[in-house]
Amino acid sequence: MDYRDAYRGKRCMITGGMGFIGSNLAHRLVELGAQVLIVDSMIPDYGGNFHNLQGIEDKVRVNIADIRTESTVRYLVQGHDFIFNLAGQVSHLDSMLDPNTDLEINCRSQLTLLEACRHNNPEVTIVYAGTRQIYGRPQYLPVDENQPVRPVDVNGVNKRAGELYHLLYHDCYGLRASALRLTNTYGPRMLMKHNRQGFIPWFVRLAIEGECISLFGTGEQRRDMTEVSDVVEAFLLTAASEVCQARSFNLGHPHPLSLRELIEILVELCPECSYRLVPVPPEKKRIDIGDYYGEFSRFRAAVGWEPKIDPREGLARMVAYYREHRKHYW
Amino acid sequence: MDYRDAYRGKRCMITGGMGFIGSNLAHRLVELGAQVLIVDSMIPDYGGNFHNLQGIEDKVRVNIADIRTESTVRYLVQGHDFIFNLAGQVSHLDSMLDPNTDLEINCRSQLTLLEACRHNNPEVTIVYAGTRQIYGRPQYLPVDENQPVRPVDVNGVNKRAGELYHLLYHDCYGLRASALRLTNTYGPRMLMKHNRQGFIPWFVRLAIEGECISLFGTGEQRRDMTEVSDVVEAFLLTAASEVCQARSFNLGHPHPLSLRELIEILVELCPECSYRLVPVPPEKKRIDIGDYYGEFSRFRAAVGWEPKIDPREGLARMVAYYREHRKHYW
Repeated sequence: MDYRDAYRGKRCMITGGMGFIGSNLAHRLVELGAQVLIVDSMIPDYGGNFHNLQGIEDKVRVNIADIRTESTVRYLVQGHDFIFNLAGQVSHLDSMLDPNTDLEINCRSQLTLLEACRHNNPEVTIVYAGTRQIYGRPQYLPVDENQPVRPVDVNGVNKRAGELYHLLYHDCYGLRASALRLTNTYGPRMLMKHNRQGFIPWFVRLAIEGECISLFGTGEQRRDMTEVSDVVEAFLLTAASEVCQARSFNLGHPHPLSLRELIEILVELCPECSYRLVPVPPEKKRIDIGDYYGEFSRFRAAVGWEPKIDPREGLARMVAYYREHRKHYW
Repeated sequence: MDYRDAYRGKRCMITGGMGFIGSNLAHRLVELGAQVLIVDSMIPDYGGNFHNLQGIEDKVRVNIADIRTESTVRYLVQGHDFIFNLAGQVSHLDSMLDPNTDLEINCRSQLTLLEACRHNNPEVTIVYAGTRQIYGRPQYLPVDENQPVRPVDVNGVNKRAGELYHLLYHDCYGLRASALRLTNTYGPRMLMKHNRQGFIPWFVRLAIEGECISLFGTGEQRRDMTEVSDVVEAFLLTAASEVCQARSFNLGHPHPLSLRELIEILVELCPECSYRLVPVPPEKKRIDIGDYYGEFSRFRAAVGWEPKIDPREGLARMVAYYREHRKHYW
């Protein structure tokens, strides 16, 4: 499917648009000739970073706002053709330490946004950024969409609710909504300040700094990784496609890596770094899901998507980006 | 399994204990020699009714409190052996008109209760009152626990989150939690003031009043109905049983009835009433799930439960109760 013409001149809002995936999407939408409104709360430590807009600052509108504020959301949703709904609390550990904040952002604000669309922009198309975290520890691999949902953290429960709200507002009110269940996304413009938003950025940072990377457990856990440009393409295909409405799709990558293999690639890219195996700390063990890799054939069948970027190429691109832009990220 | 000795002298807290199922459970627990604490917000129209405790007023403690109040919940959970967690917003229609209130009660308060237990009573056993509403429109019948979850209203999404929180707090923190997915429960002590909490009480009220009952659609929708004493037994079996921990179970009844058959039984019991078919109003059509009856063999295999009361017998018992106690219910 060719979506390139679908966005020319179209009004696109990106919640969480200053963050990792949102800003990469903004760059691509600008290339495609869209009118982009970025909405972001810029909560410290969540991933919003003005540097992420470098090169498109003058081609997008930025509105700092928190999606927890109902009246603001009600106003902002008006007049858009597409909403890419990426705002969220994404740290699994934080969701266990402060379940209420996760609930406010990942449940209540999603309801607020959907209510706002229903009343003020019922024709909009919304794509929701869901997560493979909803499945918890896989019962079989690769994980397809029929896998039982059994989250291992509060974030997983709330992200599942967020996804179901979107489908529900389609079923009940006809909103054009769909959801993608992202797996480990990585690449340029990712938060690198702390290690609470996934292991990939933290490993890349340590590698670039020439540090010794602590790998929990045996390093044999296998994960699939999708480079952010492939994920951006997935969002653009979904929003432009009729067949995606009211459905949820897994993303995934056909070449899962063990964490040890991932680190070995980083050691090749950054020969000054090293790694060692250390025991898993209890607060991480509790919410660890073991091996995970996703089956994305439902999505491939719907829109023809498959990831184009291999982990080795993606990691090389990521390392190069942060070597150049490091001062803006840590 | 014989649970009768499991509750003697045990401290049992019932959230929503002044309501329909909670109060029936309280009566049974008093019979079994338990020390019962009833917690209820007594929010008008939610189902709490002091008359429901008639006969056991002096044998239970009552604490009026709203489970949305964190500090209160943190205090109240202490020292109990069992918590029967029945407090909830139960109206499907209300959840669409006021999704935030449903979220506060069915999501946030559940997290509050579980956090309170984790910190202040980690040894407690909790049974959560879930709902078959999480399945939405069945893809096949009877509905077993492998049926895809696709709620048709906000209440269904939030009740699903509530259930997943309970299982999660088991998996992460070792809380002894489990969930029952109730289907249409009916019987004595049910709210009869308005028609927003299900069709059975409203039909029974109209039948007793000798009114003409408006049956939406063709009346051919089939539903299973479980009498409240069978549901109470299910809660008592679940809490007393090791094998139920960390699991969710459907309840159900092997003899589903069409709504028309149900009304015909009521016409036999109350010959002064009648019925007529009317078109389905749009706000009900949107969240109607069509035929539903549940497969409960997973629960039967776990604890030996099956419903003992047939719809005809249950409805006769219900009509008799309200003929006697009508002035306390409408």
